[in-house]
Amino acid sequence: MCVKKAIPAGDVIASRLGDVLGRGAVLTGDAIGPEYRCDESLHGSPAEPAAVLRPGSTAEVSAAVKAAAELSVPVTARGAGTGLSGACVPVAGGVVISFERMAAVLEIDDANHVAVVQPGLTLAELDARTRGHGLVYPVFPGTSAATLGGNVATNAGEVIRSGRFVKNATGYDLTQLITGSEGTLALVSEATLRLHPRLTATASLLAPFGSVDDVARVIPQIVTSGLQPMICEYIDRGTMTGLLRASDLRLGIPAQVAARTGAYLVLVLESRTAERLADDVADAAARLGEAGAYDVYVLLEGQGADLLAAREQAFWMVKAAGADDLIDMVVPRSRIPEYLRRVQELARQHGSRVFGCGHAGDGNIHFPVYEPDERKRSGLLQDIFAMGVSIGGAISGEHGIGRAKKRYYQALEDPAKLALQRRIKAAFDPAGVLNPGCVFDLAEAGPAATSMR
Amino acid sequence: MCVKKAIPAGDVIASRLGDVLGRGAVLTGDAIGPEYRCDESLHGSPAEPAAVLRPGSTAEVSAAVKAAAELSVPVTARGAGTGLSGACVPVAGGVVISFERMAAVLEIDDANHVAVVQPGLTLAELDARTRGHGLVYPVFPGTSAATLGGNVATNAGEVIRSGRFVKNATGYDLTQLITGSEGTLALVSEATLRLHPRLTATASLLAPFGSVDDVARVIPQIVTSGLQPMICEYIDRGTMTGLLRASDLRLGIPAQVAARTGAYLVLVLESRTAERLADDVADAAARLGEAGAYDVYVLLEGQGADLLAAREQAFWMVKAAGADDLIDMVVPRSRIPEYLRRVQELARQHGSRVFGCGHAGDGNIHFPVYEPDERKRSGLLQDIFAMGVSIGGAISGEHGIGRAKKRYYQALEDPAKLALQRRIKAAFDPAGVLNPGCVFDLAEAGPAATSMR
Repeated sequence: MCVKKAIPAGDVIASRLGDVLGRGAVLTGDAIGPEYRCDESLHGSPAEPAAVLRPGSTAEVSAAVKAAAELSVPVTARGAGTGLSGACVPVAGGVVISFERMAAVLEIDDANHVAVVQPGLTLAELDARTRGHGLVYPVFPGTSAATLGGNVATNAGEVIRSGRFVKNATGYDLTQLITGSEGTLALVSEATLRLHPRLTATASLLAPFGSVDDVARVIPQIVTSGLQPMICEYIDRGTMTGLLRASDLRLGIPAQVAARTGAYLVLVLESRTAERLADDVADAAARLGEAGAYDVYVLLEGQGADLLAAREQAFWMVKAAGADDLIDMVVPRSRIPEYLRRVQELARQHGSRVFGCGHAGDGNIHFPVYEPDERKRSGLLQDIFAMGVSIGGAISGEHGIGRAKKRYYQALEDPAKLALQRRIKAAFDPAGVLNPGCVFDLAEAGPAATSMR
Repeated sequence: MCVKKAIPAGDVIASRLGDVLGRGAVLTGDAIGPEYRCDESLHGSPAEPAAVLRPGSTAEVSAAVKAAAELSVPVTARGAGTGLSGACVPVAGGVVISFERMAAVLEIDDANHVAVVQPGLTLAELDARTRGHGLVYPVFPGTSAATLGGNVATNAGEVIRSGRFVKNATGYDLTQLITGSEGTLALVSEATLRLHPRLTATASLLAPFGSVDDVARVIPQIVTSGLQPMICEYIDRGTMTGLLRASDLRLGIPAQVAARTGAYLVLVLESRTAERLADDVADAAARLGEAGAYDVYVLLEGQGADLLAAREQAFWMVKAAGADDLIDMVVPRSRIPEYLRRVQELARQHGSRVFGCGHAGDGNIHFPVYEPDERKRSGLLQDIFAMGVSIGGAISGEHGIGRAKKRYYQALEDPAKLALQRRIKAAFDPAGVLNPGCVFDLAEAGPAATSMR
């Protein structure tokens, strides 16, 4: 029933979409910089779009997606391109919709604790803007250069909106469905974000342990303690050495302690008052000591911030050090020790190296894989993902499936769930133009995508 | 393309599904008690199902839904039938799948803070079972006789599972989509629920104010204070009088205070230690006093529990008092005062009465409507919903759309969103057998439903 069209030549697309958006909003040919062809994934092939569209409003996003659907041209949305799974890498000959001209904070609503933002806004800018309101959008640590995506979305040109309330039993939860769908269901042109009170009493704790395993075992205890750390991260010995070498950071850890440390736990606690914070720090320190920490350092305010900034830069360090891939599986938090132990076993069996640092309190563990041989690396990733799924985990807690993790996801996910997701994709995107080749293979993504092969 | 079939006679259905589930699991004819024909909605017509199925396992649920889909027989899932929107009222001649034989706690996982439960389990039973683990499923106040629904679901006979972790960027969020879909997308045969530490230091505060408006204005202040009350409810004067008359409760409020009180705010605070709780109580009392509370009563432990139990019984009191409908719109919390003021204006204009009590901290306001004339009541509801939507609200925060609120929802919701939801419904339920007539009109729900008209 679906007529497969060849993708129109770039100038046809640019002309048609230039009519819709205005010429200045459309880049073609040499005006398309190399940054539009890729994201920050450690590998994956860049691709040349026929045009880059830079809409300035929801109406323009909607018009652009409508026109692309009529032309059967694949559409890939793009923020700052800091993604790690290739989700914003365009289809060759398709169009990129870049949100660089839609980067405003539209409203900060103090009474309802929400911010209304455009998708091109960076986390760093949002943090700066919410600070004066005593509020915070608590996505720490994250890549602060990344842009926001969220709740209100365009659906293949139709604009839908969601609301400014915290619970809802009215119709289906489209917001959660679109969130995390990596541009395959809809484009988000405006997001309403839930903010939290920004607590001013905060402390950073750094605890050296003998091994990653020791750190992994204390994490579930911290989570169940009720301390509710804002940040709970581990940093293994090799990564910490690299962080300290790459920055001016001085943490004051005695050399003899550092020498026998296998991994560090970083906790950031916050509280409503300085007194409560002091209590919580003492409580956390006691728990960490009982769990075998060599010591607990309470970092000065600047040091804590610097450590987290250094940690945020760890990705660049890892990239510079020649890491070949990144994994961010999420596992039930009680299985964190087992997961990390078995990852190390698998790396040894494959003759590859794995180490790193990452969030841990929520069971989402990040680490880089060092294995330049693509076939060997693919085998190792397959084994790690299969092992993680077997203990109740999922392939990605944050980075998404994108293009980079697609083949593992397709191999390991329940076929009934995959089939259902393909039907949902078709319900949102009957023309098959929304980010084809992301999450699902091209052949499964609809008529426009199929014609791209 | 879809052949419309007449619904097979009840005995055909019962025979076929008896083969699948075993005869003892299928009720037909006089064995079907009147309780299977309705829920606790204040009006709406009961309907006679051809059969009631009582599966004992996920495999049996799956087999029953598959068989029903093959026979094009509408399927309506049922827990304890405490719903208020008619979502579990069957289609006449269809089948009810009752979860009364699937009511077990399958696991309480202390390390990951989750409970795995069957859908027929009641909130009261779950609360009793989690207590010994120092954990809690914090749905207070709720109807403790209600059963649980949640995360893991069967999809028209296909079983899908979700995981035991708190974040995920792997594929689409089917869990949130199914949650709240009122049996129209899938049947949930097992749910993994997130539990929280059960804090033992708790206090209940009762603050009388001059008017509902005064209470409504203090709520956003409490929410933004960081006190994070576990419960934040208002009870208006008439409802409190009824609650006290209907129970043995003595709250110790002097008669001269009660006489000039228009509404009460109930806060339940909890904390990690008795000292912190005492601080929080003092903090809350100071804020309430500044906001115009006549006094703040800290209820003894038993009194607080009794007040909440009485509040939970308020629905029955309201029903006994002849209320004609219940509304549970959710609005941005800063608009709570405006919403309640305009509800009263609309009630006056229509010559009807509206008063009540309910959750408030999350912007979900419950109240009964007293208007026996159906046409007048419908006009009032239409006006209240339209006003609430116009200030950024949604029709239901908890009770759902079901059958009772469907016509208002269809009239007020964005047509693009409705069309998208219908396509999602078709993606999950191509045979159109899952709770047809709920949320969407029968004509829009698929072939099986269409044949029912």
